[in-house]
Amino acid sequence: MEKVNLSEKFSLFTNHWEPKIVGELNEQYVKLAKLKGEFVWHQHENEDELFMVIKGSLTIKLREKDICLSEGEIFIIPRGVEHLPVAEKEVHVLMFEPKGTVNTGNTESYKKIDLLEKL
Amino acid sequence: MEKVNLSEKFSLFTNHWEPKIVGELNEQYVKLAKLKGEFVWHQHENEDELFMVIKGSLTIKLREKDICLSEGEIFIIPRGVEHLPVAEKEVHVLMFEPKGTVNTGNTESYKKIDLLEKL
Repeated sequence: MEKVNLSEKFSLFTNHWEPKIVGELNEQYVKLAKLKGEFVWHQHENEDELFMVIKGSLTIKLREKDICLSEGEIFIIPRGVEHLPVAEKEVHVLMFEPKGTVNTGNTESYKKIDLLEKL
Repeated sequence: MEKVNLSEKFSLFTNHWEPKIVGELNEQYVKLAKLKGEFVWHQHENEDELFMVIKGSLTIKLREKDICLSEGEIFIIPRGVEHLPVAEKEVHVLMFEPKGTVNTGNTESYKKIDLLEKL
């Protein structure tokens, strides 16, 4: 049982769009990711997904509106809702989602991360 | 579907040891709380519990050691592990736990919060 220091964990990786697992509870993972640029439109059929911005700014595009998140802001994307994360500059995010969640959701064409790295 | 600004939500209440619900996903609640002083030793039989310090410092006493958390630090208390949160000065925390979790865990003698307030 050790604490997790977010800054320290973020210093351990540089790749974008590759979430790292930093905690686990109640069949959910706490993940950290660095995002930059545009991801792909996707949805998660059976999982709600939480994004919390730790550093920088993130836009989560939904079909009907854009959600612009700054540091200290959280957004929960309900299951089944199409979304597209976009970050003009690098942003550090904390994510919270069930263990089985694949970051590209229903989008088969995009590279899947089969084995998530634990930090 | 609205974002949650943590600072704004924390400005809406002052009471200590009364977590407020600010989000819900996958049968879990995201809660915010202001803590000051000492709680009671307790454990949650069936739920793991996450604490993230947003502002200030928090000590989570375990039977075998103390975990000292500063801003940007997370600690997950596994189910069944006795713990005692202590905050010398007021601390703002984010908590993540299953919907059914009662903040005092197994400790019947302490006032239970029957109806959690949503902000």
